[in-house]
Amino acid sequence: MKISEIGEFGLINRISKDTIVNPENILLGIGDDCAAYYVSPDKLILATCDMLIENVHFILSSCSPKQLGKKAMAVNISDIAAMGGIPRQALLSAGFTTSTSVEFVDQLVEGMKEEARQFEVNIIGGDTVRSPLGLVINITLIGEVEPDLIVKRSTAKPGDLIMVTGELGGSAAGLALLLEEEKISLVPPRIVQEVKKAHLSPVPGIKEGRIIAQNKMATSMIDISDGLASDLTRICEASGVGAKVYSSQIPLLSEAELVAKLLKKNPLDFALYGGEDYKLLFTALPQKADDIIKLLKEELGIKVMVIGEIRDKKQGIKIEDLKGKIVDLQAKGYNHFMNQGTVL
Amino acid sequence: MKISEIGEFGLINRISKDTIVNPENILLGIGDDCAAYYVSPDKLILATCDMLIENVHFILSSCSPKQLGKKAMAVNISDIAAMGGIPRQALLSAGFTTSTSVEFVDQLVEGMKEEARQFEVNIIGGDTVRSPLGLVINITLIGEVEPDLIVKRSTAKPGDLIMVTGELGGSAAGLALLLEEEKISLVPPRIVQEVKKAHLSPVPGIKEGRIIAQNKMATSMIDISDGLASDLTRICEASGVGAKVYSSQIPLLSEAELVAKLLKKNPLDFALYGGEDYKLLFTALPQKADDIIKLLKEELGIKVMVIGEIRDKKQGIKIEDLKGKIVDLQAKGYNHFMNQGTVL
Repeated sequence: MKISEIGEFGLINRISKDTIVNPENILLGIGDDCAAYYVSPDKLILATCDMLIENVHFILSSCSPKQLGKKAMAVNISDIAAMGGIPRQALLSAGFTTSTSVEFVDQLVEGMKEEARQFEVNIIGGDTVRSPLGLVINITLIGEVEPDLIVKRSTAKPGDLIMVTGELGGSAAGLALLLEEEKISLVPPRIVQEVKKAHLSPVPGIKEGRIIAQNKMATSMIDISDGLASDLTRICEASGVGAKVYSSQIPLLSEAELVAKLLKKNPLDFALYGGEDYKLLFTALPQKADDIIKLLKEELGIKVMVIGEIRDKKQGIKIEDLKGKIVDLQAKGYNHFMNQGTVL
Repeated sequence: MKISEIGEFGLINRISKDTIVNPENILLGIGDDCAAYYVSPDKLILATCDMLIENVHFILSSCSPKQLGKKAMAVNISDIAAMGGIPRQALLSAGFTTSTSVEFVDQLVEGMKEEARQFEVNIIGGDTVRSPLGLVINITLIGEVEPDLIVKRSTAKPGDLIMVTGELGGSAAGLALLLEEEKISLVPPRIVQEVKKAHLSPVPGIKEGRIIAQNKMATSMIDISDGLASDLTRICEASGVGAKVYSSQIPLLSEAELVAKLLKKNPLDFALYGGEDYKLLFTALPQKADDIIKLLKEELGIKVMVIGEIRDKKQGIKIEDLKGKIVDLQAKGYNHFMNQGTVL
């Protein structure tokens, strides 16, 4: 059987079996944004990694090496944010062709260092190897979080509200323009710039994540890497719950809406299925919603939206469309072995 | 300028600059077998990673997926051994082609799990991606060590003896037979099996490393991954010292000697330049040598040999050949961007 037949999630399920042989200090293994284990009663280590492959996760002609390096670091930092943690140490493995230029490597690594500096992350180790067929990057990020503050994805409860920080769809709109360059002329330059930036230079929500964690505001949390539909489904599956989302409440980046209009696409698709916005999707008790919205507005100037509620598992995962029709929310995000599409 | 012009070590030097932005808890960044940082006054976290690329680090036709998985885990565990530490948690990133079979992945991961189980290592996280151009594996290993027991590679002093655990050359002999299959018929089957095993299934020296560390026996340590010549040079460069090695004292695996004879190669070259033996190379005060040899013999049945001594830097890194002639020891081990050879 080929792995394309079982897909990324089928594969992860097989790999995850019997991986914890010494469970003593393990809080979370495979299955959340980060793994988490105790190094002392008051400290959990968080660990996450991401592998990026040329022409699967990025196309070198569509981004500068510095942008690529910055984003490779950012997506890992975002996974720490999704647990309410603080990123600390990074390890970088990279495979280059022998014809790669030193200048390219310098710029790539400078992008990583720039992003790391911004979040006070040290690059403490790594491995450089020859990769004849293209660029490969793997970053492992190690962080930490207080055991009473960690926010998992498996702890949402029916009745919780579903909330999201910031606006969605920008990254997918940027990707649409990068993949269909001939359509860029249809869109005003300022808009092009804004959505490309959303795609190429996402900002990990460490500050938001810390405020949410420190104030114990969330019952569960995840970062939006594969699209609202996929990532909400992950929370629901991990928590054993259902959900209902209101299309009318999903906060769309206005520039993404405009790109969608000009490209004759549905802007909601950008938010639901595009992914890579790296905003935080979380659940919270209804009585805390106003405080959360107020606090994140005041502290960071970030708009938090209530987009739906967690329900019983048997009610399924539903979305109410703009006409009031309630349908199943399909978890069609990016899946590495089923989907042949190329993302940046 | 192409990176093939500056080589792996030139590249690492460039990448290593300005990587530590928050030095507070960092003991070691890039440049030792593992990075090391404090999570509490009595605990150092060790972290290391290795990236393996198809047709650079392994050829699928020469090893089973299970052997590959086991070795990928073993080489990382060996880096923890070289610091005197205990391996704890692993993160696995893997890139597969869509046509990879589920059975292949199962076997690969089973190899990793088998090795991890043996050393009580948990696989706590990872990433699976599509890699159209071939298999890519990255393992990050996190371990720990007591701050007063850690053994670095930068702390050898003139007058220290140079010592090695076990016998060398087996892995290179195995590789020679795997690369020149037509010569296998020249070698008795038992010998073929033994050196192939040395190459495909190296055993990380965690027990040896712990005994050496707990008894504060070594002044510096490294695992032999790129060959005695390369790895001794690493100790010397990191410690700012020179060295003299006696060819006659280098412990050679008898099976490797036989393979060398039959293949008309120099068995010392296997030990000096072949690499991948994953034995421990360390330095120690002369007055401790007898105790070390006795203890490792008694506790683990492992033979430790004194192969030379650390000298002043200005005396260079020398080797006395079998005829008593003293020549420069050239650090020609495996270098990813200069050397076009393929290793398993």
